[in-house]
Amino acid sequence: MQVWKDYQEKNKDRFLNELLDLLRIPSVSAKAEHKTDMQLCAEAVQQRLIEAGVDKVTIYPTDGHPIVYAEKIIDPAKPTVLVYGHYDVQPAEPLELWKSGPFDPVIIDGKIFARGSCDDKGQVYMHVKALETMVQTNTLTTNIKFCIEGEEEVGSPNLGKFVTAQKELLKADCILISDTAMLSLETPSIDTGVRGLSYIEVAVTGPNRDLHSGVYGGAVANPITILAKMIASCHDENNHITIPGFYDDVVEATAEERKLMAAAPFNEQEYAADLGVQELWGEKGFTSNERTGIRPTIEVNGIWGGYQGEGAKTVLPGKAFAKISARLVPNQSSEKITAKLLTYFKSIAPASVTVTAFEHHGGEPYMTPIDSKAYQAAAKAITTTFGKEPIPVRGGGSIPICSLFEKELGIKIVFMGFGLDSDNLHSPNEKFNLENYYKGIETIPYFHKYFSEM
Amino acid sequence: MQVWKDYQEKNKDRFLNELLDLLRIPSVSAKAEHKTDMQLCAEAVQQRLIEAGVDKVTIYPTDGHPIVYAEKIIDPAKPTVLVYGHYDVQPAEPLELWKSGPFDPVIIDGKIFARGSCDDKGQVYMHVKALETMVQTNTLTTNIKFCIEGEEEVGSPNLGKFVTAQKELLKADCILISDTAMLSLETPSIDTGVRGLSYIEVAVTGPNRDLHSGVYGGAVANPITILAKMIASCHDENNHITIPGFYDDVVEATAEERKLMAAAPFNEQEYAADLGVQELWGEKGFTSNERTGIRPTIEVNGIWGGYQGEGAKTVLPGKAFAKISARLVPNQSSEKITAKLLTYFKSIAPASVTVTAFEHHGGEPYMTPIDSKAYQAAAKAITTTFGKEPIPVRGGGSIPICSLFEKELGIKIVFMGFGLDSDNLHSPNEKFNLENYYKGIETIPYFHKYFSEM
Repeated sequence: MQVWKDYQEKNKDRFLNELLDLLRIPSVSAKAEHKTDMQLCAEAVQQRLIEAGVDKVTIYPTDGHPIVYAEKIIDPAKPTVLVYGHYDVQPAEPLELWKSGPFDPVIIDGKIFARGSCDDKGQVYMHVKALETMVQTNTLTTNIKFCIEGEEEVGSPNLGKFVTAQKELLKADCILISDTAMLSLETPSIDTGVRGLSYIEVAVTGPNRDLHSGVYGGAVANPITILAKMIASCHDENNHITIPGFYDDVVEATAEERKLMAAAPFNEQEYAADLGVQELWGEKGFTSNERTGIRPTIEVNGIWGGYQGEGAKTVLPGKAFAKISARLVPNQSSEKITAKLLTYFKSIAPASVTVTAFEHHGGEPYMTPIDSKAYQAAAKAITTTFGKEPIPVRGGGSIPICSLFEKELGIKIVFMGFGLDSDNLHSPNEKFNLENYYKGIETIPYFHKYFSEM
Repeated sequence: MQVWKDYQEKNKDRFLNELLDLLRIPSVSAKAEHKTDMQLCAEAVQQRLIEAGVDKVTIYPTDGHPIVYAEKIIDPAKPTVLVYGHYDVQPAEPLELWKSGPFDPVIIDGKIFARGSCDDKGQVYMHVKALETMVQTNTLTTNIKFCIEGEEEVGSPNLGKFVTAQKELLKADCILISDTAMLSLETPSIDTGVRGLSYIEVAVTGPNRDLHSGVYGGAVANPITILAKMIASCHDENNHITIPGFYDDVVEATAEERKLMAAAPFNEQEYAADLGVQELWGEKGFTSNERTGIRPTIEVNGIWGGYQGEGAKTVLPGKAFAKISARLVPNQSSEKITAKLLTYFKSIAPASVTVTAFEHHGGEPYMTPIDSKAYQAAAKAITTTFGKEPIPVRGGGSIPICSLFEKELGIKIVFMGFGLDSDNLHSPNEKFNLENYYKGIETIPYFHKYFSEM
């Protein structure tokens, strides 16, 4: 469609600058200090959607951060696409590892460096600019709805209630999400699933105060040592998870699916070299792609206790803490696994410490069929703009709301992600390649076109 | 000696106020930001020694923090007592757990709350005020030398060089140190030994950047998990240390010594209740007193890695760190154990991470005989002022320089400590009971008197 190409080429710089403005808002949902920024960001998304040509847009307050809903209904008889995304971002810490300010976007070597550039503001904004392209060129052939929330990075605690209450408003024929990655621009791919999540925090309390490690050391349980033993006990020597019942509900991938996965281009040496590790690591009996795709995992996301400053302090601390999360695969249940994790950490504690543990958030694993109309439209759109058919792969990350969307709205999701695994999501120096950003804006109109034709 | 009692009673309030002034200087040796405070504190100690009546006082610069040396020589033919102590203090963190400012001393319920109140400014200052008492009442019967350093809490890295270079200056008949505790005012005791120390820091590096725990989780070794496994591996199920060769040089306490220790008043229930723990913990086959006295230990003093902020962040961190120290008993060598620790942590790391480890500082264990003149003089002095003979016990803490003092100067040390184990040394809300402070000032002149008579 030359008309799209021309329009996008002409407005390229503005498309970029508008995104950079959005990236300047530190919309960190996990931190109370950013409450005002969250509201400002929701308002900015609202304003950009109006400019792009939606008929109506509403900011729905929630018990947490607001949800931006917008729609452009061209003809109720036409198919409707619901675009889901999020304007909130992960905390930027550790700040000292950023080469530029996380909320001062810079372009270096054709990449936008900023928190949220890829996850998910950049990918959401591709849809806003794709809509603008179709509206301005009078080529929109679907109805479009937007549901852009502000709590994805904290587990979407309030979106479920909204979806349940607003089934009519959100009614659509498919849900389109750009919040995942593809293998590369040369090897486009579509995620056919996302892992679920259980995220807990554990606190181990020993003595009622920090102690002199000489005077008391040896006679009192050290909460750090106990916590380390608890964490160490989660995996056996084959890196198999040992928590009772953890694998109970796992649906093993078929030999066929594992064969398909093994066929996807993957260079273990390059993967390790990119990460700077001498050897990969993981559950015995599975390949790296399987370990991040079809297998559930447990990771410690943070740990702290005792003296962490300069030099040495001979203290036996009173407390130690860890943030621990599990990625889940079909048909594990986040609620069940969270309960198992909480029980496990409490149950293995010796009587010389007390353990408290609570849930941060969770989300169910989700799989999408590759024979749906939406998947077919996405594959065709990508084939058109990339000149290559996308490979179906299983993604390792989580989008907590997916299974609830399907359950409440009765429609399938398609993940059309344009990021790369190497975009440093959730890490310092998050980036989004300009090429990927523009490729997304170029591809999305084709999705709508093909979806309306199917 | 009524004349001492009268003098001390008359000057009681001033003795306290001068100490409070000293406690207001944040002389934290571990932190570079306190370099100026260290110099100021050394000068304050110098000034107080002059006022107390020494003949000469010099501040000796070192590669680290300065050493204050002072002396009062009444007659070269008389015995000489070298008082060793330190004006530096442990870092005050975690600050949020202090009920008052660590460097804003307050008196509550007859206790001085401040960092350094007991360890060791308060105990050093007892000696300054004891000297003043003897000088002002013309009752000094020994020569007194003071060696008050500013790096005890960081392992005395520069004191050894000073001692070796200044053997003539430091020549004495005994070394008197008040930097330990007694069981209680009702059950006075004298430490007959201090444990040694090996203190290292371990860094585990996995991937070259923080990763998204979903995208990469399962395929890359998590440095926190690996560090936890390393720490967990240091003790077996009987809390026996598993590091190869760790116990090789340990001289087991005799049945006789263990019998004596068991006779000292100790109430396990009260000890646990004071610490707020349901159960004590430690090496199988030893009592709590043995675990802190005659047995070597390994404690994790601090751990950190990944996200430690509010809420949840799904990160697989690139690095994790721990500060780990061992307490040593005769005849373990700090140098040897440090080497074993460093080797152990490096050797058990899987190839999927890299481990670096370095030494913070160390100190040798030290035992002092109970039949020395100095010990006898200390025991007699305590018996005079407490009305009870002190019990010999083994202390759990470390004073790094002891074995070097003995080696270089060829004289014995006596530990006449007036603190309590419950003084929160190295912890928030460190305190020193006023009663113990004054009891120390009262007792020390008797030590000099009896020592000169022996």
